[in-house]
Amino acid sequence: MNARVYLAGPDVFLPGPLDWAARRRSICATHGLEGISPLDALPDEPADWAELPEWHRIALRNEAHIRRCDALIANLTPFRGPSADVGTVYEIGFARALGRPVFGYANVAEGFTQRTLDFAATHGGAIGSPGAVWRDADGLLIERFGLFDNLMIEAAIVAAGGELVLEACEPDRRWCDLSAFERCVAAAARVLREPGPAPGRTIAD
Amino acid sequence: MNARVYLAGPDVFLPGPLDWAARRRSICATHGLEGISPLDALPDEPADWAELPEWHRIALRNEAHIRRCDALIANLTPFRGPSADVGTVYEIGFARALGRPVFGYANVAEGFTQRTLDFAATHGGAIGSPGAVWRDADGLLIERFGLFDNLMIEAAIVAAGGELVLEACEPDRRWCDLSAFERCVAAAARVLREPGPAPGRTIAD
Repeated sequence: MNARVYLAGPDVFLPGPLDWAARRRSICATHGLEGISPLDALPDEPADWAELPEWHRIALRNEAHIRRCDALIANLTPFRGPSADVGTVYEIGFARALGRPVFGYANVAEGFTQRTLDFAATHGGAIGSPGAVWRDADGLLIERFGLFDNLMIEAAIVAAGGELVLEACEPDRRWCDLSAFERCVAAAARVLREPGPAPGRTIAD
Repeated sequence: MNARVYLAGPDVFLPGPLDWAARRRSICATHGLEGISPLDALPDEPADWAELPEWHRIALRNEAHIRRCDALIANLTPFRGPSADVGTVYEIGFARALGRPVFGYANVAEGFTQRTLDFAATHGGAIGSPGAVWRDADGLLIERFGLFDNLMIEAAIVAAGGELVLEACEPDRRWCDLSAFERCVAAAARVLREPGPAPGRTIAD
């Protein structure tokens, strides 16, 4: 039976999200994985969830999907700020606590520190200097670990031999280019086939 | 023995983070809780972690702290964008998957939809109309569930009878005012004392 991978990401906010989910599922199938979208129905959804507000039902469904998957693949393309979508990051933490391997990809290759400095430049500025401590206009420290995003995300990927695939894309293709996604799916398929722990690593562009 | 609560939030990025952690710990003690800061040393940190890069050690330490706590209190004040800090949100998902009650507070009371629309207004604009669907400049849907932040966060708080405390603050007091934090600690102390599940709810300002 194919390993099941949960496809986390703000892609569900794109127009025509079911078509996008179908394209991603098809790429997963090519690599011998079953892709599960947050938009998929839950086969045996408890009847009493029907009484819950829609947002609550969506959240419970996403958590139930992750529990039933063998791994999680996250779209880490920065979303409305320097970091990934918080819904996606919540799901990464959730999967990690359950011991599921986490894989990540992004259609942006620039590092977290530079993205945060760029953001700060249009939001009150930043104080610091190269090689020293940087703080934003609120005095909050800007992380300088040479990572792609917040350190918790990267540690979750490393924890169980996951991989992080980064590809720079033209801004207008940032939400529709599936090339980094496909490379990430291929990496996940490889790691999920191999028995035992593999070292986590970053595949640069 | 006092219940142990993990204090998640971007407060660790403030200048003098150890002093802030001490003040928060002291507020927790007043309410009969033991506050654990991400900056606290781990009593029995594995010796081989010393070989890891700093960012990785921090992440593993935070996860170990959460595993040893009875609940999590999260600072959800928006951080570099419309949503909470992704490191904090990762930890909420992590705690939730372990079944720990999650409590949240913010020094901002405005809802997620309006904050996202305000953000979009200075990042390419948004298309839509009140009562209809809104999309940002990338065509990505803007959530309209009347929540305070992404639905996964709010569902985690509701799941185990947690509470969400919101207080509007002057922008220059956003990272230093501890009043919403203290109300949240009091709520957590009350819920953690009560046996059995309690309904989650939002305490408005």
